[in-house]
Amino acid sequence: MEQLSSVPEVRAYRACCRENNQRVAFVPTMGYLHQGHLALVEEARRLADVVVVSIYVNPTQFGAGEDLDRYPRDLDRDQRLLKALGVDLLWTPSNQDMYPDGASTFVSVEGTLSSQLCGASRPTHFRGVTTVVAKLLQVLGPEVAVFGLKDYQQFQLVQRMVRDLFLEVELVGVETVREADGLAMSSRNAFLGPDERSAAPVIRRGLLAAARDLGAGLAPDAVLARLGAEVTSAGGRVDYIDVLEAGSLGRYADAAMAGGLSPEDLPALIALAAWFGSARLIDNVVVTVGGGPGMQESRSNGAPHGSAAD
Amino acid sequence: MEQLSSVPEVRAYRACCRENNQRVAFVPTMGYLHQGHLALVEEARRLADVVVVSIYVNPTQFGAGEDLDRYPRDLDRDQRLLKALGVDLLWTPSNQDMYPDGASTFVSVEGTLSSQLCGASRPTHFRGVTTVVAKLLQVLGPEVAVFGLKDYQQFQLVQRMVRDLFLEVELVGVETVREADGLAMSSRNAFLGPDERSAAPVIRRGLLAAARDLGAGLAPDAVLARLGAEVTSAGGRVDYIDVLEAGSLGRYADAAMAGGLSPEDLPALIALAAWFGSARLIDNVVVTVGGGPGMQESRSNGAPHGSAAD
Repeated sequence: MEQLSSVPEVRAYRACCRENNQRVAFVPTMGYLHQGHLALVEEARRLADVVVVSIYVNPTQFGAGEDLDRYPRDLDRDQRLLKALGVDLLWTPSNQDMYPDGASTFVSVEGTLSSQLCGASRPTHFRGVTTVVAKLLQVLGPEVAVFGLKDYQQFQLVQRMVRDLFLEVELVGVETVREADGLAMSSRNAFLGPDERSAAPVIRRGLLAAARDLGAGLAPDAVLARLGAEVTSAGGRVDYIDVLEAGSLGRYADAAMAGGLSPEDLPALIALAAWFGSARLIDNVVVTVGGGPGMQESRSNGAPHGSAAD
Repeated sequence: MEQLSSVPEVRAYRACCRENNQRVAFVPTMGYLHQGHLALVEEARRLADVVVVSIYVNPTQFGAGEDLDRYPRDLDRDQRLLKALGVDLLWTPSNQDMYPDGASTFVSVEGTLSSQLCGASRPTHFRGVTTVVAKLLQVLGPEVAVFGLKDYQQFQLVQRMVRDLFLEVELVGVETVREADGLAMSSRNAFLGPDERSAAPVIRRGLLAAARDLGAGLAPDAVLARLGAEVTSAGGRVDYIDVLEAGSLGRYADAAMAGGLSPEDLPALIALAAWFGSARLIDNVVVTVGGGPGMQESRSNGAPHGSAAD
């Protein structure tokens, strides 16, 4: 496995792949890899001749007072894991590589897609994500990029950015990988103490119950109240919790009315962020109520679960 | 001369140039072409095998109440002029081509480079410029793009964006082309009535006098007061007028102090926007005071004069 950091090195690597007509798949990560990341790498392996993984803890997607400094890192272990999976190139840019002195250009997606959920509780987070993803894609120019779907909103935003800026890359979303008890894999799970770790699966249990409730016709407000109470009683502190229209992330009822639909005909996203101790965890479920099979988690690009970054 | 509008068509055209190893030079414009634009096309012709000119009056760089609707247009005449210069492709995207339904991604440069001058009096203008230039460059992927330097600030911002987002294109700036009496060529000169047209060359005369004054050691405030009075007494209404550090567009004195220089050692930009009747005109001069030859207009990329767009 090769390892490079600077932009000119990575460009030269890419030029070499193009000369050899090799298809490149890219998995951007922030490192401290878990099974969720490895599932992305395996998917990338299936999709292309050359697999490139980046590890970069991107400062512009952390707000003041967030966990940038204590974000978990273990490059030695990450290198071993990626090598074992046959990754071709590990790209570990420095801050100076990604944001040279004077860098002041940002790529942002405006509107409900970015203003809800994590966009509301972490106001500059997604601007940092879309900016760094635009830069990484621009330098590497992969044919395909693979993202986890735990961060549903992040995947929607990256898709929108790629479409709007006419970036020529195919995006693939991969289902969230979970622990046996349903907890979504996350690098931030490392922050959980033993009691918090035991309590955290309430997120998944609660989301699945909320999906059933919504599918059974319970009003969104009642669904959210029940879910919030469940997480709180398990010791979680809810950051946000919402039912949104799954495509636009607009208000669920508004989106339905704008489309002339009853809300029951639109896929809904139930998304949650909650603190357990010092770990902020996110998860979500997509529900198709009415018409469809009652409750459905989407597997395709564009609808889904899980963050490539965390 | 070929003419295309949609993104897939232009991508196919570009792919064809690449297969033939043809170097592409690109001149983005808003049409209603004048000698300034034609100088850009001639420069593009010198620099590449294939010359592509776009004509697109980009709505996102006009603010509410600005002159988007009445911006002058004459596509027939533009086509004839470009054909006569041997342009290979005229790209005339529609709003739907550039901003398909739901488009909500913006590229912006933050800091003094965008907040001063036109960035202060037209708050969303440069966000629109950098967004549309990023999209045009992304679709066409030219080897070189040519901009006029009447809008000094625009060229600086596009350079910064290209550098920050790692776009692989060389940028070339071309000196402002002027009428015999010194008035900078601009599509908006079409808005000038006869008296306003006679008065407008005061902009250039005043800027040259201001450059001499600054070079001779007159304090910036006094230079600006004299220039403002001259423009006003000729019937102009000053929108902004400023002396800035030519590289960063930061405050002239601050920039010098930050660099441990006396202000006399730094190139200064004297920039002005003024209304004559319903036409908002801009112009500028770059001055090297001290050390250098007294007064100097820069000709190279990165320091200079004139807008590709207007």
